[in-house]
Amino acid sequence: MTTSSQSNSNDIEEGLTFSPKFDASGLVTVVATDVASGDVLMVAHMNDEALRKTIASGEAWYYSRSRKSLWKKGETSGHVQRVIEMRMDCDQDAIWIRVEQTGAACHTGRRSCFYRKIDATDGGTRLSFVDADRLFDPAKIYRK
Amino acid sequence: MTTSSQSNSNDIEEGLTFSPKFDASGLVTVVATDVASGDVLMVAHMNDEALRKTIASGEAWYYSRSRKSLWKKGETSGHVQRVIEMRMDCDQDAIWIRVEQTGAACHTGRRSCFYRKIDATDGGTRLSFVDADRLFDPAKIYRK
Repeated sequence: MTTSSQSNSNDIEEGLTFSPKFDASGLVTVVATDVASGDVLMVAHMNDEALRKTIASGEAWYYSRSRKSLWKKGETSGHVQRVIEMRMDCDQDAIWIRVEQTGAACHTGRRSCFYRKIDATDGGTRLSFVDADRLFDPAKIYRK
Repeated sequence: MTTSSQSNSNDIEEGLTFSPKFDASGLVTVVATDVASGDVLMVAHMNDEALRKTIASGEAWYYSRSRKSLWKKGETSGHVQRVIEMRMDCDQDAIWIRVEQTGAACHTGRRSCFYRKIDATDGGTRLSFVDADRLFDPAKIYRK
């Protein structure tokens, strides 16, 4: 590592300048947690515009990689995320937001996208449902 | 969306088959939270081998994109992460692990990598330190 890159690395990690490190697609990873329960609600991405809109509005905007478009969380569903706190990580390529989630964060209707546990079994690895009640779209509730 | 992709999407989202969706680099995003405080400790990546080793050993292994190598968390520092629970997200490209963190998760010495808040100011966006005490490497403590 050169002195120059060490210095830059130190600025990024120890400085107070907001300088998000976008990846090759222009995105940073964002983790949204529920400010009340602490649960992880979702992992998504923001581009520069989504980040600016989130900071300016206090509500979460994301960038959809599949739809290739900016997206305000809850714009159609009403399930908005009010941002209580935003945190930057050491190398400034990931952001943690604590939010007040209206309704459900997951498009499947669950409060959180993480509604399945991963467990080791004798034969390999299996998922099992946990906290998987749907808060909307009851017609599509999973049938055991 | 075709019927075929809908069916696949439904299996991935509603099924109990463990089928992580690795990105073009063979990685899934992993969020580690502190099982006691609920705080996000770090965001990192696992490849297939890291994921298998984590599930088999009950301690977190990651894949370092910068070093291009498998990495057991705490292998040199002793700051291991004991995995209490693993969760898969809806589209199986992100994993949430609740861990018991020995010492500090961040290489800068802080408990969490997210030791700076992001705040809007009149002139733009600034960071400020929060929960930024170092648990190791005191010689390098940030000097105001």
